[in-house]
Amino acid sequence: MPADPAATALPPSLAFFAAGFDVRLAEFVHRATPRSRFGPAAGPLAARLVRLLLSGGKRLRPALVGLGFRTGQELGGRAGGDEEAWLPAAVAAELVHAFALIQDDLMDGAHLRRGMRWPAAGPGPRGRRALGRRLLLADLAFVLADLALEEAPAAPARLAEARRVFGLLRLEAVCGQAEDLRLSVPAARRPGGALTPAAAARLAALKTGLYSAWRPLQLGAALAGPAGPWLPALRAYALPLGIAFQLTDDLLDLQGDPARTGKAALGDLREGKPTHVLAAALHRLDGEGRRRLSRLLRAGAWPEAAALVGATGAPAATRALAGRLVARSRAALARLPLSPGLLGELDGLAAWVLARDR
Amino acid sequence: MPADPAATALPPSLAFFAAGFDVRLAEFVHRATPRSRFGPAAGPLAARLVRLLLSGGKRLRPALVGLGFRTGQELGGRAGGDEEAWLPAAVAAELVHAFALIQDDLMDGAHLRRGMRWPAAGPGPRGRRALGRRLLLADLAFVLADLALEEAPAAPARLAEARRVFGLLRLEAVCGQAEDLRLSVPAARRPGGALTPAAAARLAALKTGLYSAWRPLQLGAALAGPAGPWLPALRAYALPLGIAFQLTDDLLDLQGDPARTGKAALGDLREGKPTHVLAAALHRLDGEGRRRLSRLLRAGAWPEAAALVGATGAPAATRALAGRLVARSRAALARLPLSPGLLGELDGLAAWVLARDR
Repeated sequence: MPADPAATALPPSLAFFAAGFDVRLAEFVHRATPRSRFGPAAGPLAARLVRLLLSGGKRLRPALVGLGFRTGQELGGRAGGDEEAWLPAAVAAELVHAFALIQDDLMDGAHLRRGMRWPAAGPGPRGRRALGRRLLLADLAFVLADLALEEAPAAPARLAEARRVFGLLRLEAVCGQAEDLRLSVPAARRPGGALTPAAAARLAALKTGLYSAWRPLQLGAALAGPAGPWLPALRAYALPLGIAFQLTDDLLDLQGDPARTGKAALGDLREGKPTHVLAAALHRLDGEGRRRLSRLLRAGAWPEAAALVGATGAPAATRALAGRLVARSRAALARLPLSPGLLGELDGLAAWVLARDR
Repeated sequence: MPADPAATALPPSLAFFAAGFDVRLAEFVHRATPRSRFGPAAGPLAARLVRLLLSGGKRLRPALVGLGFRTGQELGGRAGGDEEAWLPAAVAAELVHAFALIQDDLMDGAHLRRGMRWPAAGPGPRGRRALGRRLLLADLAFVLADLALEEAPAAPARLAEARRVFGLLRLEAVCGQAEDLRLSVPAARRPGGALTPAAAARLAALKTGLYSAWRPLQLGAALAGPAGPWLPALRAYALPLGIAFQLTDDLLDLQGDPARTGKAALGDLREGKPTHVLAAALHRLDGEGRRRLSRLLRAGAWPEAAALVGATGAPAATRALAGRLVARSRAALARLPLSPGLLGELDGLAAWVLARDR
């Protein structure tokens, strides 16, 4: 992890959200679920969702919606108009992400999110009640996402295209999570299974390349104006950036500081997640090494397992791959004739993905 | 339960769906989630969803979408045009319902749906995997519902109104389920809590009055044409019908045949569901009776608890209330100047809600 704090601070395009965006997000959730229309349980449910939304998060996807919108404005020659027309779509993207995080934590058995502890879901009336509350929190976020997008002040053709992209974004989120689950193997059954570095990279392409990076950018761009020949270059910027974001996420799980990430350390190992760094370690170990790693995982010896993964050189290889992907992403910017200010923000975001410590 | 089998057969408007609608439903799910675009897990996930969709279900909500559309056509004076323009919205309504059923069964710990057994969700890697698969099945249905609605061949203003209604339908489904959870009290803590006959009726108004009856009708009507002064009469038909549907559902759980319902007997008692019949029983019992019911529920003596509920006269009272609601629903039809054929179908549906044994 880089020691220079400036290198890991959020880039301006993300830091911008800390204040204004959160107010907008909370305002929308409360306004969209009045108790008078949706029954006595609606208010507390909305309040819980707002608490989760405001308890942290990098606002990466909303920032990308905004950057996509500004790109579309500059390159579609439509500067002017409503400068904030992308905000409802950014709220929608963040709400879908909240939905995904809540469900992911349930599927992974993760207890900690944004430094907050989840009530334990499980069998028995109390556990099922906790499960129900967490599911309904996710459901509310998912429905509201849709309603938020409809508030975007855009021409019908723009909104129709935004809806199409938003549908893809959500399908990719769900199908990406299904592929994640397919490749996840409980510790007791590792090594083996379908987890190869190539499968892990394909998964990252679906989950973060498309869902977390390209679709939010495309969503913003769709609201700004019709697609132009610059759209493939924006895609070439987004896809490797999103995959690199996943790789650095995996590395943070292995080597990061839980006080910064807001997640328990070594959660991916505990949960049998199909990370690229684990796939690379399995790929580098011989039969005896794999059996040793399997024994450590089976025994719940997480720090020892992490040390063995580290000793294979897999983290360095994953970091190097992330570096190459970010370089490719930054190179794609040369094909986008944008203003220096916007180019700088896109470039800064790419640099941050590599340098981040949270 | 009525002994005459003809009285409990599905009315024609529902039976119609047995063939054509199911084909349409399955075709849409497969078409919308090609493996080539959404990764290796998309195909099996879609196939599991289709299996669940085709394994049963009364198709009540899709039928109501169709009836609402035909009502809108007749009373908006727009007969002619695409007679099947409502089908995508009916697919959407059925997909939202599949989503709700999957999640409800998770929250309730119900093991059986449409005669199919769910894999047990719970703690540990295997249980969390089962949970994940069930959640993603629900998520896929929820996203696809949205995409299905967009396929409705309707004018932009019609589709916009349909989207608005569909947003309400989904918010009411989520907030209704949250209220259900709030009123659900584990057997060990009954009696007491917030469960009164009035609270149970308010819950039914949200969950089945609005979500299951009025919104599907309104959705179909919205696609057919602009609202007219007949819309309140259609609402007056739908709301009591939907509440009555919930009451007969509660009675079927208590007294029905699991071979017909596809659900385990006495599931509501086991799961502490806030049914009207239980609320009415609690209301009718004195302190000693409530303590006895509480002891039986705590001990898991479900048949004895059901017998005690029955002895209070609560089932007869709930059935009488359902009868009054259905009568009110049928009376509202007099204010709708519809063709005799359509009136007959709406009336037949109301009669079936009271007479049904599944």
